[in-house]
Amino acid sequence: MPNILVSNDDGITAKGIAALVEVAKEFGTVTVVAPDSPQSAQSNSITLYQPLRLKSSNVFTGIEAYACDGTPTDCVKLAKNIIFKENEIDFCLSGINHGSNASINIIYSGTMSAAMEASIDGIPSIGFSLEDYDADANFDPSQQIVRKILTSIILGKEKPPALLNVNIPKLPIHEIKGVKVCQQGSGQWVEDYQMSEDPRGGKYYWLAGKFVNKDHASINSDLNALANGYVSVVPSSHDLTVYQEIKSLSHLNSK
Amino acid sequence: MPNILVSNDDGITAKGIAALVEVAKEFGTVTVVAPDSPQSAQSNSITLYQPLRLKSSNVFTGIEAYACDGTPTDCVKLAKNIIFKENEIDFCLSGINHGSNASINIIYSGTMSAAMEASIDGIPSIGFSLEDYDADANFDPSQQIVRKILTSIILGKEKPPALLNVNIPKLPIHEIKGVKVCQQGSGQWVEDYQMSEDPRGGKYYWLAGKFVNKDHASINSDLNALANGYVSVVPSSHDLTVYQEIKSLSHLNSK
Repeated sequence: MPNILVSNDDGITAKGIAALVEVAKEFGTVTVVAPDSPQSAQSNSITLYQPLRLKSSNVFTGIEAYACDGTPTDCVKLAKNIIFKENEIDFCLSGINHGSNASINIIYSGTMSAAMEASIDGIPSIGFSLEDYDADANFDPSQQIVRKILTSIILGKEKPPALLNVNIPKLPIHEIKGVKVCQQGSGQWVEDYQMSEDPRGGKYYWLAGKFVNKDHASINSDLNALANGYVSVVPSSHDLTVYQEIKSLSHLNSK
Repeated sequence: MPNILVSNDDGITAKGIAALVEVAKEFGTVTVVAPDSPQSAQSNSITLYQPLRLKSSNVFTGIEAYACDGTPTDCVKLAKNIIFKENEIDFCLSGINHGSNASINIIYSGTMSAAMEASIDGIPSIGFSLEDYDADANFDPSQQIVRKILTSIILGKEKPPALLNVNIPKLPIHEIKGVKVCQQGSGQWVEDYQMSEDPRGGKYYWLAGKFVNKDHASINSDLNALANGYVSVVPSSHDLTVYQEIKSLSHLNSK
């Protein structure tokens, strides 16, 4: 049985991680290391100037679990170094996030950062997200999708990919049209800060805004897959190099 | 004169941002929006559950500047939406960071996240970092490098690239061998958590560790460029898709 590390960014008591653990344990020995509080939009941030604590948790019956007072990245670093011995983690699964991590959301996402942190060490990792921010979202269809994908990745014969960003549309299972492997969409947030004054008369700004899909309908992107009722699977990486520009920027080279 | 937004992650009073502003103002009208406190390793994190404040700052003589109580990404989002009108920012420069952001450090870096956030909006952006963590590091050689690169990017005839990660070796200027456009190196951190007990007897873990260069010496990577005395320039992107895997993972597609 493979060792499966499960984490998330909504916190260890979120409904989404319970849904993920329930399916993951069909595929291996699950250990949970997850934040003790919500850590949405924490990206790959690391706690440098504070100590971190791990508390044993009995949130999941029969599953070894720890709540950590750091970020999702901290959780995975601690799991790799404190809970597990070297090379003991076979897979890392993160989520199921309450809300989409498609398109540009991947760079802000704590869910994806947990998966990415494990993948840097060569651990095949998957982040799962449901397009529903509700704390009480229905994860039943998502569980069927997770099971289908883990069957391919964990039980399949192909070498597992390093990092997948899986997003699931908010639909009943019979309305989900299938799974599409695709590219990260080029949507972005258009911010609309709420401006107001605090009780001491200080001006403040509070982030709000809307997400805009900038992809042409013909692009095989995660945003278009979701809009058309498909689960999106984007093979992703921590290597941000734009390789084709290394040549086109050669005028910057000098000796 | 182009409008140049300057930010960083070490905070508005860091020596590195003063060094950057001094050079940037030779190339355009500089506006600074930077964190009011150190925000290292904050990655692309965003403040969702707290209001943000902007305070006018006179840290830089003759330069419009604001200190923000959020992350580097918050700084740039506020700059784009509150300080500037739409499409008014021509370039975004971030840094000069006290410490390397080469290789995997790009994903944790607050310096690079500020530049990345602007680049998402199509603003050509550059993060500058010096391989020296000292608060009192010598930025004189770095200023000459920044000037050289801005001369190419801002005054040159080529279309400016979307996002560059520039790292500068800790060397006197006459020992810097040149500039190399290269790929993100495959180094990584090997953590070594310090374990101890707090005054209440609670066990804690504090992140420490060392960085390991995993690149073969023949690879044209930022780590190798720096090790050989070159400034590294990595064209980078917020698109994390591994395009070649879209085809190789087609067995995951389903209807």
